[in-house]
Amino acid sequence: MSGNIGPVDAGRVPRYVGPATFARLPRIDQVGRADVIVLGIPFDSGVSFRPGARFGPAAIREASRLLRPYHPGLDVEPFAAAQVVDGGDLAVNPFDIAAAIDTVTREAGALAGDAALVVLGGDHTLSLPLLRATAARHGPVALLHFDAHLDTWDSYFGVPYTHGTPFRRAVEEGLLDTDALCHVGIRGPLYAKADLDNDARFGFGIVTSADVMRLGVDAVVARLRERVGDRPLYVSVDIDVLDPAHAPGTGTPEAGGMTSRELLEILRGLRGTRLVGGDVMEVAPAYDHAGITATAAAHVAYDLVSLLALTPRAGAAPTTGT
Amino acid sequence: MSGNIGPVDAGRVPRYVGPATFARLPRIDQVGRADVIVLGIPFDSGVSFRPGARFGPAAIREASRLLRPYHPGLDVEPFAAAQVVDGGDLAVNPFDIAAAIDTVTREAGALAGDAALVVLGGDHTLSLPLLRATAARHGPVALLHFDAHLDTWDSYFGVPYTHGTPFRRAVEEGLLDTDALCHVGIRGPLYAKADLDNDARFGFGIVTSADVMRLGVDAVVARLRERVGDRPLYVSVDIDVLDPAHAPGTGTPEAGGMTSRELLEILRGLRGTRLVGGDVMEVAPAYDHAGITATAAAHVAYDLVSLLALTPRAGAAPTTGT
Amino acid sequence: MSGNIGPVDAGRVPRYVGPATFARLPRIDQVGRADVIVLGIPFDSGVSFRPGARFGPAAIREASRLLRPYHPGLDVEPFAAAQVVDGGDLAVNPFDIAAAIDTVTREAGALAGDAALVVLGGDHTLSLPLLRATAARHGPVALLHFDAHLDTWDSYFGVPYTHGTPFRRAVEEGLLDTDALCHVGIRGPLYAKADLDNDARFGFGIVTSADVMRLGVDAVVARLRERVGDRPLYVSVDIDVLDPAHAPGTGTPEAGGMTSRELLEILRGLRGTRLVGGDVMEVAPAYDHAGITATAAAHVAYDLVSLLALTPRAGAAPTTGT
Amino acid sequence: MSGNIGPVDAGRVPRYVGPATFARLPRIDQVGRADVIVLGIPFDSGVSFRPGARFGPAAIREASRLLRPYHPGLDVEPFAAAQVVDGGDLAVNPFDIAAAIDTVTREAGALAGDAALVVLGGDHTLSLPLLRATAARHGPVALLHFDAHLDTWDSYFGVPYTHGTPFRRAVEEGLLDTDALCHVGIRGPLYAKADLDNDARFGFGIVTSADVMRLGVDAVVARLRERVGDRPLYVSVDIDVLDPAHAPGTGTPEAGGMTSRELLEILRGLRGTRLVGGDVMEVAPAYDHAGITATAAAHVAYDLVSLLALTPRAGAAPTTGT
Amino acid sequence: MSGNIGPVDAGRVPRYVGPATFARLPRIDQVGRADVIVLGIPFDSGVSFRPGARFGPAAIREASRLLRPYHPGLDVEPFAAAQVVDGGDLAVNPFDIAAAIDTVTREAGALAGDAALVVLGGDHTLSLPLLRATAARHGPVALLHFDAHLDTWDSYFGVPYTHGTPFRRAVEEGLLDTDALCHVGIRGPLYAKADLDNDARFGFGIVTSADVMRLGVDAVVARLRERVGDRPLYVSVDIDVLDPAHAPGTGTPEAGGMTSRELLEILRGLRGTRLVGGDVMEVAPAYDHAGITATAAAHVAYDLVSLLALTPRAGAAPTTGT
Amino acid sequence: MSGNIGPVDAGRVPRYVGPATFARLPRIDQVGRADVIVLGIPFDSGVSFRPGARFGPAAIREASRLLRPYHPGLDVEPFAAAQVVDGGDLAVNPFDIAAAIDTVTREAGALAGDAALVVLGGDHTLSLPLLRATAARHGPVALLHFDAHLDTWDSYFGVPYTHGTPFRRAVEEGLLDTDALCHVGIRGPLYAKADLDNDARFGFGIVTSADVMRLGVDAVVARLRERVGDRPLYVSVDIDVLDPAHAPGTGTPEAGGMTSRELLEILRGLRGTRLVGGDVMEVAPAYDHAGITATAAAHVAYDLVSLLALTPRAGAAPTTGT
Repeated sequence: MSGNIGPVDAGRVPRYVGPATFARLPRIDQVGRADVIVLGIPFDSGVSFRPGARFGPAAIREASRLLRPYHPGLDVEPFAAAQVVDGGDLAVNPFDIAAAIDTVTREAGALAGDAALVVLGGDHTLSLPLLRATAARHGPVALLHFDAHLDTWDSYFGVPYTHGTPFRRAVEEGLLDTDALCHVGIRGPLYAKADLDNDARFGFGIVTSADVMRLGVDAVVARLRERVGDRPLYVSVDIDVLDPAHAPGTGTPEAGGMTSRELLEILRGLRGTRLVGGDVMEVAPAYDHAGITATAAAHVAYDLVSLLALTPRAGAAPTTGT
Repeated sequence: MSGNIGPVDAGRVPRYVGPATFARLPRIDQVGRADVIVLGIPFDSGVSFRPGARFGPAAIREASRLLRPYHPGLDVEPFAAAQVVDGGDLAVNPFDIAAAIDTVTREAGALAGDAALVVLGGDHTLSLPLLRATAARHGPVALLHFDAHLDTWDSYFGVPYTHGTPFRRAVEEGLLDTDALCHVGIRGPLYAKADLDNDARFGFGIVTSADVMRLGVDAVVARLRERVGDRPLYVSVDIDVLDPAHAPGTGTPEAGGMTSRELLEILRGLRGTRLVGGDVMEVAPAYDHAGITATAAAHVAYDLVSLLALTPRAGAAPTTGT
Repeated sequence: MSGNIGPVDAGRVPRYVGPATFARLPRIDQVGRADVIVLGIPFDSGVSFRPGARFGPAAIREASRLLRPYHPGLDVEPFAAAQVVDGGDLAVNPFDIAAAIDTVTREAGALAGDAALVVLGGDHTLSLPLLRATAARHGPVALLHFDAHLDTWDSYFGVPYTHGTPFRRAVEEGLLDTDALCHVGIRGPLYAKADLDNDARFGFGIVTSADVMRLGVDAVVARLRERVGDRPLYVSVDIDVLDPAHAPGTGTPEAGGMTSRELLEILRGLRGTRLVGGDVMEVAPAYDHAGITATAAAHVAYDLVSLLALTPRAGAAPTTGT
Repeated sequence: MSGNIGPVDAGRVPRYVGPATFARLPRIDQVGRADVIVLGIPFDSGVSFRPGARFGPAAIREASRLLRPYHPGLDVEPFAAAQVVDGGDLAVNPFDIAAAIDTVTREAGALAGDAALVVLGGDHTLSLPLLRATAARHGPVALLHFDAHLDTWDSYFGVPYTHGTPFRRAVEEGLLDTDALCHVGIRGPLYAKADLDNDARFGFGIVTSADVMRLGVDAVVARLRERVGDRPLYVSVDIDVLDPAHAPGTGTPEAGGMTSRELLEILRGLRGTRLVGGDVMEVAPAYDHAGITATAAAHVAYDLVSLLALTPRAGAAPTTGT
Repeated sequence: MSGNIGPVDAGRVPRYVGPATFARLPRIDQVGRADVIVLGIPFDSGVSFRPGARFGPAAIREASRLLRPYHPGLDVEPFAAAQVVDGGDLAVNPFDIAAAIDTVTREAGALAGDAALVVLGGDHTLSLPLLRATAARHGPVALLHFDAHLDTWDSYFGVPYTHGTPFRRAVEEGLLDTDALCHVGIRGPLYAKADLDNDARFGFGIVTSADVMRLGVDAVVARLRERVGDRPLYVSVDIDVLDPAHAPGTGTPEAGGMTSRELLEILRGLRGTRLVGGDVMEVAPAYDHAGITATAAAHVAYDLVSLLALTPRAGAAPTTGT
Repeated sequence: MSGNIGPVDAGRVPRYVGPATFARLPRIDQVGRADVIVLGIPFDSGVSFRPGARFGPAAIREASRLLRPYHPGLDVEPFAAAQVVDGGDLAVNPFDIAAAIDTVTREAGALAGDAALVVLGGDHTLSLPLLRATAARHGPVALLHFDAHLDTWDSYFGVPYTHGTPFRRAVEEGLLDTDALCHVGIRGPLYAKADLDNDARFGFGIVTSADVMRLGVDAVVARLRERVGDRPLYVSVDIDVLDPAHAPGTGTPEAGGMTSRELLEILRGLRGTRLVGGDVMEVAPAYDHAGITATAAAHVAYDLVSLLALTPRAGAAPTTGT
């Protein structure tokens, strides 16, 4: 009906059968065109504590076997509304952060073409080259950044490109629309009070994890939508925005986090914004249990894909969920 | 005082000592009569993804060692208010779903007699024969179904009896009072929008997991009580109604679920309804950690037992919590 | 600036490098003076179900490697505002509960001197000798007790000193100000309704886990502050106050618990009370996963330390967060 | 050089990048021809204790990422000596054992054509239809069966086709050359002494796990080679032939088993026999740890593939290890 | 045929169904007489490092579900040759080592009567009261002690009765025949060279774990049989005699241990000795994985039971394996 | 007696109490001199598959709590025979391999002075700078390299310094005595047959894991001793030399490995050689279970320390084990 090629039919081929492409979707080489590409980037050389996010893309894909084609929360069949494909993994150098960033900067945009990317990380270092690719196409973008941490620090051990610094670098490089930046889910101790001052100076607003509990998700959604308006929007999700109860499989856990229900409901509240790309990062499967972190990340990616499927595309007829 | 035989005294025999009957209650053969029977049915041949719920009853019983005799939330001493026993396990054929369903249909009702059953599963396929046994005694019953999934699909691989289809079959067989059916905790993607239409056509209302967060448990309780009224009520709990953080040990986890506190408070809100039986299903211990899923299930079963102990029984003097 | 010696600089020495003192703070013998001492007491011979809390202090310290020096929720740099040190572990006899209690009674106060203690347990038996040491210096104290359980039982197996009895003993010994006692997070079944009557008779109020969900943390904070006023206050946290999803690594888990976010926000609400000491107990790492229980406990201890750093000390100039 | 398409180059694409085909080999649809096909069959509905082998093929493939192209023990580059491909998974009905066996009987042979199959299970029920497909092409075959258990029982619960019965059925169906059958690694208690008598009557020899320890692998190899001679040979490996220390991730573990080193050295001792196919079964990842069971199974499969690559093929020029 | 009541039939009732008595045998109260009693003693208050063996009996029983009625290595059907029953658990005080030892001293012998005991521990402290009960009936006994550690130390923390001291106490109390004592599997560092001198002075011989590797099990068996002759023999197995690979679930692991195959083959070599009782100790399930330690212990207990079933009993007709 | 300061007394301070220095030895700053220094280097940025060895030193130290002062296999009290200290951790840059190698090259030798180093890794990249420091003091050294892998590859992703290349670089830099090099425990597939040719050209002999099984440890020891003679000897142990059953907690596991007993007995066979330093690498605790890998590594380090304590030191009086 839609002309798009969707996932394998789970009523004939059990969910645990066959290769673990995202949501059991076709590979990009099987389709040859795409509106949305789910892309893995297995890389974790930028982490400061527990490594292992290089195995994140594979774990998220395994967990995504349970995803089904209709999203009731957003009332859309994303794989019918858009051609969504699994773009495979980018191969980047694990021994050289700068080389890895260069590869992603160069190849992510080239791979995407006119399609939107939803990236499965990998550590948060990667959001910088992904924002470069995004800004190259859309100009400076609005950013909603879901994370326990600010990720606007300057450097570690004298190294400017790590998983704690991507958004500072992105501001410095002019990739972000500094009127439309917000962290969500922030909590835990900081190095110094100045961290907050710097962060605000870069243009970021903050909705803490405690704010989400006190205000409720609908009020948070309203605040976020006001901030981003109809600008092109990038959504970056560090899975540690969730409480360790919901996401044990990550590298720098902080108590007091959001629930997966809050995170997903906030994402669903973004229906109608102008999402142009996103990522879900820092899933470290060696610390996961029963795939619960990967399952949460798979749902996040599915929501990002669904929002992108709902976003009108240049030169494309409008699609609806029905 | 009550004349009922209660659990082993934990002040003399440590909780980790002796056989793991539910809540360390006597076996049915030790008592010879029962108002409420906790019955295990180790069976998981109807599952479509992760198997292992055949080990659910044993795990829930182990976790139930920590249960104590007074329920402050319901203000009842259930084991004094009613004779509660552990009915052991039903042995059913793991290699033949139809044979297993026949066994449960035949033996569950025979075992129960006038007593109420609280079943420890086992996969959700079993709710169909349990509803048959229930309806044989009480006529079509109201149903509150706590689950991430609708379980009203038609078939998988051409097979009509699986863990995704029991409630559709139950409606078709006339076992349910279709004016008084509600799913609670639903979330996650579906196969198609038509799933919702079919489900509504069968008579089900839906309270999603997100609704529970937005409305709060007391409003949900009010809505459920209004729906079931004073009809004979069956409560079926798929443990995956809980978020994977609370119930990693299950076969088809979905992010964005309820907390165990919400679930237990909703159950406690059912005090005064006319509960006639219930089950807690889909605990798969191989995916559990530190018994947290089994602990949640043990508390669910304890709440169902307590509600049943509070329900006036034909030919029995009214009991109170003290 | 502050003259205090703080933690190792994580920008030069990675967090996973070097000995795991609490928050990578100096040892007491490296500084020679202290306002706040974090003290481990590895002991679990008083537990009635799952042992293993003897490994709690080491696990909490490992998890505390991620703590940073500025607490945004309380707006304080605790390690600058006060000299905080790691006091190491007390060595107590694992084979003789009475001897262990005697050792703690004698040595904890001697070690503390004028400093405040934040104890990493260890099982809850230890709160009795810690309250003895506290009362010896401050007189009877107000108590906020965060726990799933009352811990005011009389005895197990005829033994009066176990992890289920410390607060009954403390009341009997006159260590507590019985006008200012409150349990928070209580849930789960009890031995008998009389447990509640006894507990109330000892002077305890109760805020259940369900109350926290219904009232919200701010209302709970108001109630607690009203109860404790400006009395010297001891805060004892049994980590099982958290739901097993947040704290699987403990000995007597109960479903339906609090989230780590609720617990931490309530603790932060105690800013301005007159905290004189505290403990975090019952972390049993063998049942933990990915350190999430220890992480929650490390944040609890960090919040207690931060509150103590904010508390005016006799003979000390007032300190602020900056 | 060899004209065959080999695995992805691990010096350019890290081992954790890209889809987990067996040994990172090409898919069958990427090559279009094959000498050896590695085929997954995710199915575990025939198991009598712990299920979960349906996830075995995926786990073995993940573990096979570490395999490299040169086998020093057999002195062969198997992927150069033969065109080896990953044939993907067969989709079989999880709810109907008979239907599943029919599907494998029908499709395995059709898929294989002239190529040899190495099957990743899946439970041992599957060896029956695989032997049917093998015998259809080669006539009755010699069998070396590595297992803790005989798997020559008659039925469970009246069901003739389960994971405990495949080789009895195979003898009854005339698929095996009863002069050339041997179990290796047998241990643990049996139902009755008659089990051994029946088994011997079917033609099986037995080398117990204790025999392997006492005789050493070289003497065992000599005995096995004498038994199978130059007959077409099928090798079936139930991973529970290994001690639970080496293979915790399986359904019916028995203490006292073989080491992975013994198993692999015995397999290598089969160089020069006329291997025509094989399988490695009963890997249940939910019980595995750090992938050690899957790693052992991946090495077993790699050895089977290497032996097949060394076996002269009809119409093929002889290949050597270099 | 034998007149003895055996285990539940696994061909009709799946192994995971029903209560976990040892090997699914009847309870002692179901039979009323016994030749061999398998008795659990959940107690671990005597351990010096990782606690948790209080959960050992339950874990071993769960793992014993897989045991079958015929022992091919010893050629005996133990449950036919003798009436073997599950004696349940002794309840002992977890807070008072002396009281616990007293209870076992008093009750173990009374429970046993003329039957032989195979005890599932529990920590090694318990072997002292078990030897008291044994010597009360048989006089001083020969002892084969399988362990990584000597367990002949004098005291810890001034306490004479712990899991490191039972055999020194047993020698001092005259419970052992000091001409017929041997440790097997010893390895790892000691406190001082004098440990060995003391141990030898008490009469113990030592076969180290390395000796087992160098000599082979048959030579070890010969040495042990020579030492114990036809004296009444007690066999005590600390599961940590196995390498941590085979027995991770224990409290004081030492690298370089025996394999489960070696241990079981040595036990089988004791056929024909005059075994009068035995125990398997120190299984700590919280550190186990997939039940492999408990599985090894279940096989050890099964071998001890089988040896006892083969031992002629006073007033009993001789039994054979068939 | 010896004048050396030994570990904390485990008879007064339980093993789980206090900081986890290696074997509970004093820190270097507590003693001020040392014959042997145990040094941690938490670094894993050179790994090609599973990262996490940065947490290796902490895990090995935790496991070393169980070590005791007398080594019966070598008949030495190492902490009396030599002053052994814990040198803490070197802090190296996780984001820059070259910088990390420079730091180790520079600081390891400076720290050691006249003392011998036993390094707890960390990944195998580190052996190169450690050999630089060793050769700077002793000239080119003999090397026994225990590993599943050759680690003499040339580069990955164009990077010459990784965990797969240290010994090729060491040969190129002239740090090794190429007449006295041997790998032990090698197994698993290689990239090409040329790997073996290159390796032999560098001067390495190979004792495979299968050789150890076939020859026995004593014959292996003889071969190794012949090769190294009385040259200054460095022993480098990659923990993956052990089978994954014994060492699941590592990054590139290979089936078919050595047992911990074999490894330790071979090390003990080196008594009397001229050991000058050693390391134990690649312990990745996130993949470990119950600390068994770390326990094996702790015993390896203890054996290396004991051998060093037995090695005559320049300017030191000879020491013996008694």
